[in-house]
Amino acid sequence: MATDSITAGGAFGRVSEQNRCSIERILGAEHVRGDDALRREYGTDALGRGLPADLVVFPGSAAEIAAVARLCDAQRIPLTPRGAGTGYTGGAVPANGGVVLALDRLDRIKEIDEASLLAVVEPNVVTGALQAAVERVGLFYPPDPASLASSAIGGNVAECAGGPRAFKYGTTRRYLLGLEAVLPTGEIIRTGGKVVKNVVGYDLTQLLAGSEGTLAIITEATLRLVPKPAARRTLRAWFAGVDTAVAAARAVIAAQVVPAALELVDAASLAAARARGGAGLAPDSAGAMLLIEVDGTPAAAAEELQRAAEACESTGASGVQRAGNDAEREALWQIRRDLSLALRAVAPLKINHDVVVPLARIPDLFRAVDALRRELRLDIACFGHVGDGNIHVNVLVDPQDAAQMARAQAAERRLFEAVVALEGSISGEHGIGFTKQAYLDLELSPETIALMRRLKRAFDPNGILNPGKIFPEYPLGTAPRNPGTR
Amino acid sequence: MATDSITAGGAFGRVSEQNRCSIERILGAEHVRGDDALRREYGTDALGRGLPADLVVFPGSAAEIAAVARLCDAQRIPLTPRGAGTGYTGGAVPANGGVVLALDRLDRIKEIDEASLLAVVEPNVVTGALQAAVERVGLFYPPDPASLASSAIGGNVAECAGGPRAFKYGTTRRYLLGLEAVLPTGEIIRTGGKVVKNVVGYDLTQLLAGSEGTLAIITEATLRLVPKPAARRTLRAWFAGVDTAVAAARAVIAAQVVPAALELVDAASLAAARARGGAGLAPDSAGAMLLIEVDGTPAAAAEELQRAAEACESTGASGVQRAGNDAEREALWQIRRDLSLALRAVAPLKINHDVVVPLARIPDLFRAVDALRRELRLDIACFGHVGDGNIHVNVLVDPQDAAQMARAQAAERRLFEAVVALEGSISGEHGIGFTKQAYLDLELSPETIALMRRLKRAFDPNGILNPGKIFPEYPLGTAPRNPGTR
Repeated sequence: MATDSITAGGAFGRVSEQNRCSIERILGAEHVRGDDALRREYGTDALGRGLPADLVVFPGSAAEIAAVARLCDAQRIPLTPRGAGTGYTGGAVPANGGVVLALDRLDRIKEIDEASLLAVVEPNVVTGALQAAVERVGLFYPPDPASLASSAIGGNVAECAGGPRAFKYGTTRRYLLGLEAVLPTGEIIRTGGKVVKNVVGYDLTQLLAGSEGTLAIITEATLRLVPKPAARRTLRAWFAGVDTAVAAARAVIAAQVVPAALELVDAASLAAARARGGAGLAPDSAGAMLLIEVDGTPAAAAEELQRAAEACESTGASGVQRAGNDAEREALWQIRRDLSLALRAVAPLKINHDVVVPLARIPDLFRAVDALRRELRLDIACFGHVGDGNIHVNVLVDPQDAAQMARAQAAERRLFEAVVALEGSISGEHGIGFTKQAYLDLELSPETIALMRRLKRAFDPNGILNPGKIFPEYPLGTAPRNPGTR
Repeated sequence: MATDSITAGGAFGRVSEQNRCSIERILGAEHVRGDDALRREYGTDALGRGLPADLVVFPGSAAEIAAVARLCDAQRIPLTPRGAGTGYTGGAVPANGGVVLALDRLDRIKEIDEASLLAVVEPNVVTGALQAAVERVGLFYPPDPASLASSAIGGNVAECAGGPRAFKYGTTRRYLLGLEAVLPTGEIIRTGGKVVKNVVGYDLTQLLAGSEGTLAIITEATLRLVPKPAARRTLRAWFAGVDTAVAAARAVIAAQVVPAALELVDAASLAAARARGGAGLAPDSAGAMLLIEVDGTPAAAAEELQRAAEACESTGASGVQRAGNDAEREALWQIRRDLSLALRAVAPLKINHDVVVPLARIPDLFRAVDALRRELRLDIACFGHVGDGNIHVNVLVDPQDAAQMARAQAAERRLFEAVVALEGSISGEHGIGFTKQAYLDLELSPETIALMRRLKRAFDPNGILNPGKIFPEYPLGTAPRNPGTR
């Protein structure tokens, strides 16, 4: 029933001069760019790896996107949608050349409906800008990926972005009510809508969330908003090591507190933060830190903070400190958000694995990481969303050191094997992209992968949309291409 | 690309004596039943409409289900999975005969993992039984369809059941972490798992939620649990009419309260409840009632109840009454859960439309219902989840009265057209089944329906799983069948 390839077979096309002219007629010549600098810029993402696009185009509407898609589909030209390019797994990278569909121009907040608690946005609205806009009218859009100052909603949807608040509030998919999207064959579809419940037909909205730009091009999203919590309270607690910190996190939950955020930072990450000016974050002796935020009505937030503090103290925290005001609170979160930058100052390259395990297995995960540190002599710093069992395991390396890079490569497979053995998942937030394709079958059975391929074909019969992602064929730059202008 | 039919073409098979023998060899003869009474019993659901199955089989494992599926697929015999049969749209009904796969024997709670906050259950675990089991260990499974005392988790997943708590807690899909499921072609797949975040490949778990048993047969579900709220507080408030009640519901939300439940009951429903012994529910003069429940820590619940009461009073409630204790609280909810029964006492048949509109359009929905009452001379009683915009519009009729039934039929289409015009959805909880197939294209475009058909084929190339549901072909009993033993 299933064939082994998601593509229709044969080589992909290249962008000919004639194709370029056709696209210029659709979009206007000023929105079609083939200069080297831009092709390179739009050929990578936050990971810093990729390949230049053949052509970068800037459509202004779903109809224009549909016309470009039809052309690429007919010519078998790879088509890669791209938002803000802040991903870590190359979702927005033209892994096998072709046309990059840069959604830069689709950046409007179309509607904030206070009475219906929803917003309608174009894909390139920056997450933080949407949050600020809805908070001005007393509403709240909870998903808060660390990149929120620069990442865009379309990419947040395509990757199903999470963030610290996911423990209480869930990830992007929970706020996704509806989509307008363009199929690679050019049809414009609408999924879901302006209602919070909808069981009419299959849930295409949820299927597109996290599909990494391989099924359809998102051109509009309708997002659910919630009332903005009246109060937020934050504390940090220090522990001798991660085991105690994890036990404290469990004690907080057992105390019937559902924190808005429940973040763990390990000793290596604390050291990096300290080196980058986060001196006040935790005492030098601390082996791990929890950052806990509660929100709700003022009385609820005060009561939950008290319960959380008591849970930490009774589990052996060496110190518990509450943020006294909003400025202290914000400073604490800024250090947390800057952890990625701090780690990048420790080593030239940070390989970030966003693994997830069931809550009860988090100590086992840290033991597995310790074994990798020891046996493979690698610097590894961990932090993340302990309430979700979602820990960012950062392997810190120098890409010039070939032997170290080989050990990092070995660590990657061993980490993923350990995670799967712990009934976890190899990615909780960043997706597979072109960086984890080779590990897909560690987590998914051949039957499940075959079914996913059939779904891919139901959306994209010719396999032109974002080839070289998720599925193992066509790793970076390996897809067969016909001769062409580039 | 798309053909017009989800089936492979040609007629469906019937169950021959040889097929029956083969199934008996798979399941044991005692688990294969062809007697008339059972075929009829397993041929309807809570709607009370349907057709007898050819054969009712009671598998004991996923492997047995896979073997039966392979046989039915090879012989093109319709296969309909069935849980507790409490649905309202015929999802579990063998609309075109064939084999009913009764999941009665798969009724074990396999695991409640307190440390990882999850449960692993077989599909026929009764929702209320799971809730009781997890609450005994201080945890909480929020989805609460009115049928929770008899409906089963598998059906809750297949239909994406909601309930009053969905406003704060979301519907079944939010608690669904993973599934084991059997494809109609016999492969056993696992989707998701024991982690709360997972972006590895397409989200098959979410795609199967709400797919009405047309894509795969659910054989195990892994469900997320949350800490049980320490306190629950409930109030009811009376209003002159639904407009004021809806304004009050909005005021509650604007007061930054996220109630666990926010339910509206209209005058016709109040009258029916009164007639059935719910005399104390609301004064005779009340034109609408809100039932509001808040939960959380004791201080939070008290504060939110106070804010909710003030919001109701400031919006013109004629009375606000707080449940003084758990018994009063439970009595109130029992009346709410019994509303369906109360309405059935008013008229022999209650046609229940579970429409949804954006919050701001709820008053418009009630105006549209008033027009139907007036112009079509029908008794219509409304109640439901006003926080979700999900209102159950119940048309009360006597099936013996042909003229009235024709008016009810006209009301159905006019209601659905009005809902779609209000940017709503024709079903928020009950699904399409075989009762709303004819209206699918009111809400979904031809391109979207064509895509859903391609997804259906990706799971079920021969169209044997639950034919006659969702898509408009083969309404009840109209699929072509080959001659056979029945």
